[in-house]
Amino acid sequence: MQAPFTTLSEFRDILGRAPQPDAAATQGAQDRNGQLTKPPGALGRLEDLAIWYAGWRGTDRPQISAPQVVIFAGNHGVCAQGVSAFPAEVTAQMVANFEHGGAAINQLSKAFGAKMQVHALSLDTPTADFTTAPAMTEAEVVTALQIGWMAVDPASDLLVTGEMGIGNTTSAAAVAAAVLGGQAADWTGRGTGVDDAGLARKTDVVAKALALHNMDDPLEALRCVGGRELAAMAGAIAAARHHRIPVILDGFICCAAAAVLAKTSDGALDHTVAGHQSAEAAHARLLHALGKEPLLNLGLRLGEGSGAALAIGVLKGAIACHSGMVTFAEAGVSAG
Amino acid sequence: MQAPFTTLSEFRDILGRAPQPDAAATQGAQDRNGQLTKPPGALGRLEDLAIWYAGWRGTDRPQISAPQVVIFAGNHGVCAQGVSAFPAEVTAQMVANFEHGGAAINQLSKAFGAKMQVHALSLDTPTADFTTAPAMTEAEVVTALQIGWMAVDPASDLLVTGEMGIGNTTSAAAVAAAVLGGQAADWTGRGTGVDDAGLARKTDVVAKALALHNMDDPLEALRCVGGRELAAMAGAIAAARHHRIPVILDGFICCAAAAVLAKTSDGALDHTVAGHQSAEAAHARLLHALGKEPLLNLGLRLGEGSGAALAIGVLKGAIACHSGMVTFAEAGVSAG
Repeated sequence: MQAPFTTLSEFRDILGRAPQPDAAATQGAQDRNGQLTKPPGALGRLEDLAIWYAGWRGTDRPQISAPQVVIFAGNHGVCAQGVSAFPAEVTAQMVANFEHGGAAINQLSKAFGAKMQVHALSLDTPTADFTTAPAMTEAEVVTALQIGWMAVDPASDLLVTGEMGIGNTTSAAAVAAAVLGGQAADWTGRGTGVDDAGLARKTDVVAKALALHNMDDPLEALRCVGGRELAAMAGAIAAARHHRIPVILDGFICCAAAAVLAKTSDGALDHTVAGHQSAEAAHARLLHALGKEPLLNLGLRLGEGSGAALAIGVLKGAIACHSGMVTFAEAGVSAG
Repeated sequence: MQAPFTTLSEFRDILGRAPQPDAAATQGAQDRNGQLTKPPGALGRLEDLAIWYAGWRGTDRPQISAPQVVIFAGNHGVCAQGVSAFPAEVTAQMVANFEHGGAAINQLSKAFGAKMQVHALSLDTPTADFTTAPAMTEAEVVTALQIGWMAVDPASDLLVTGEMGIGNTTSAAAVAAAVLGGQAADWTGRGTGVDDAGLARKTDVVAKALALHNMDDPLEALRCVGGRELAAMAGAIAAARHHRIPVILDGFICCAAAAVLAKTSDGALDHTVAGHQSAEAAHARLLHALGKEPLLNLGLRLGEGSGAALAIGVLKGAIACHSGMVTFAEAGVSAG
């Protein structure tokens, strides 16, 4: 098995041929929703979620039995600019922690019945410092997209993409600014916890990158200021669409990667829902730009896919209600 | 086994002797939280939830393995005033639906590993129409409080109280207005979906009740304008405190019952967290009055404990992270 693209141009073409939800399943789920033993609309967003999920899965009464959490890790040359509160070696240390089951995402994956994999992407070869050169060559960014694409199990019925990469809120800020517009300061935040001086350095770094690179094309922005883990997340989210697997988006970095897809092809994120709004300052702005209302808003800012994994529970609850409840007729309940 | 009170006065005394969280467990959990492999504060509210839960359970590394969902159903004489979009017989029909496993709360309980029980409280004998007389005698309200108290399994480690009772948003609005102040219109909403005329009738009914009864004492308010299921929820929440079982509060009706406890004894809800903010208009006001920030805000307005049951997932995620993650030292990760 290989990813069905070998260039950015081929990847773009695939996005343009993305499948749509099953209209009959969507209608069937809407009809079913109207007959369940509850006042109309009383389950709020859970009803919308269930109908949306049913359409992508092609059945009016879906189940979630095989969620997948996949984490991509990458290192960033831009760390040389002093943009993170943590040293770059923490990326590899945290990958080991994921592999040994000790991180937050391990516990959340287990709690919500998701299988989890980690892909460490050339950690010994950080991307180039994008204040002086493009972060990646086309071959590098395509390889990362391919790894992301191939990481998605076609038998999964729900996908969460997470990341680890010291310095990657800076990279994500640069990507977001390049593809969505606005000033560097609009998109930079404290990440894992930099102080005021660190935040000023991040903002300056992003501004330099915006001035240096020609990023009119979103995929070119991903190459010039993104990172391998961002590209891999974009590849995985695109692969999920190909397999009609709904995706729960995580925080700022995941959404920056997703924004590349949204700006490359209209509707490229229709199979995704925002798992949460993170405490990273610009995530709310990013969600707004993507037109996504988060399911949770609990002040998380960890990455790893943690907020999205937590939202698996919400989606599971929605699907459990939709597919498990009986109708007014089945229960002999007066429909009001 | 019997409930440890036989009068409202004895119930009030028990609230005044409520246990407090374990200070050593709280401190131990705070210390542990600071050592886990994540940037400080990166799990946001999940960290606060875990420390809170640990304190009540008396261990710095707790588990959630036995959540309990208990639903109380009651009928309301005030339905004669045309305050609901559904006929009163739906209460009993939905109890049968709960017993047969067909309702939303059945699916959510199963999805989050909670055992669920239903208690139908004298459904053939509705409370008195509180626009003309007190809803209950003291004996009736005490019986309902006792049933709620006894419904809590001391071996549970988390409690959700839900309700079913056609007409009970009107009763809850009257209780909230009586114990928290404000005008009838501040506390009335569309419940399961009444039209404008229905909403005007509800508001008028609540205003009449406020004028008729002397409700300076919150427990007297519960007796005069509450319902058996509201009293049972109050009894269950108090029993959970007695057993040091944390509680996730549900929507408007549950929180109105909880407000009776809060106004009877300071700190009576310290062992509770708000599971969600419902779409019932006055629930946000009620949460604000109780000083509770909801975990979820997804537009639910079903009752049954559904919003709180959905929030079991969030709390389970918080505890899984807190108790399952390794420390920086254990993982060999640089702490920044």
